[in-house]
Amino acid sequence: MTLSHSPTATGVHIDLATGILNGQLVSTQRRTIGDLSNVFADEAVRAAMPQDQLAYEVQLYQPIADGTAGGLFFGNTTIYPGTVGGEYIMTKGHFHALGDRTEYYLGVKGEGFLLFMDRDRGYKVEKMTAGSLHFIGPHLAHRVINTGTTPLTFLACWPADAGHDYATIQEQGFPVRVFERNGQPDIRTL
Amino acid sequence: MTLSHSPTATGVHIDLATGILNGQLVSTQRRTIGDLSNVFADEAVRAAMPQDQLAYEVQLYQPIADGTAGGLFFGNTTIYPGTVGGEYIMTKGHFHALGDRTEYYLGVKGEGFLLFMDRDRGYKVEKMTAGSLHFIGPHLAHRVINTGTTPLTFLACWPADAGHDYATIQEQGFPVRVFERNGQPDIRTL
Repeated sequence: MTLSHSPTATGVHIDLATGILNGQLVSTQRRTIGDLSNVFADEAVRAAMPQDQLAYEVQLYQPIADGTAGGLFFGNTTIYPGTVGGEYIMTKGHFHALGDRTEYYLGVKGEGFLLFMDRDRGYKVEKMTAGSLHFIGPHLAHRVINTGTTPLTFLACWPADAGHDYATIQEQGFPVRVFERNGQPDIRTL
Repeated sequence: MTLSHSPTATGVHIDLATGILNGQLVSTQRRTIGDLSNVFADEAVRAAMPQDQLAYEVQLYQPIADGTAGGLFFGNTTIYPGTVGGEYIMTKGHFHALGDRTEYYLGVKGEGFLLFMDRDRGYKVEKMTAGSLHFIGPHLAHRVINTGTTPLTFLACWPADAGHDYATIQEQGFPVRVFERNGQPDIRTL
């Protein structure tokens, strides 16, 4: 431990009204429409959109090495509002590479759906709002969908050795998609 | 997974302004002055105080069995303001039973100090304020001290298999104590 015997400010501050992290060890990842090939139902519409349009961004605080047993990471995700051919903008979604690793999401701003899928393609949907706390249990893929008209931001805490399995979702997708219909979300099974 | 194909509210809601959890699976633990024998420097003063005076309380959300590898728990702690013989009210403090398990604290309300101690009794102090995010790394004992005049509330996320080792602190204590002096915190090494 680096010793500091005077009280110090912590390295990271979170704006509790917006969910934005500030701190030297915080990194940012951005996903544009161009990064999301084969995520949405209408690939032709997606391919015709501005490829540099921001779909979502992630702030990561990783104060311990990736893969460390017992370690934890913290971060946020902000998903921008809009649709791709009527389908709400969403994250790619993933299982954890170590399948039994769990996670929390905490809604801070905006509104959306958290979509879960188990290994048998069973699914459930939870509403995300400011203050909604979501436990992502073992062996559940998870994807977040912005169903509102403003950015959706949520905080997340997950094990440093969880890892990400994006490939299963890229190959098999989720069993439902969520479209905007008359300004309301319409959940369609495939 | 219990399947629910209609979007449902999540089981737990957190008031982001106060840090209070609401939900059916949320339990509460309370620690009174009577529960904190041999925690403060002046045991005689503590013993003479009202033993049912609330020192701090914890709300716990444990949606997976205690001890589950890969599981995570979520909760909060509210420490009430005041002193015991001039020493600020604080949590007992603990190492994790599985020493490499880490944790996050996120300040929501009030102000205080987060005191860390390693296995060699090295220590550091971080200020807790609304929005301060604290990573409790491996093999670090942690205790929180309310140095303000209002309740201090922080959220926490930690592994379901971390466990608590309170005994080491009960026997050896921390290497510093924090007293109120002219309305300001005074950190005294032992």
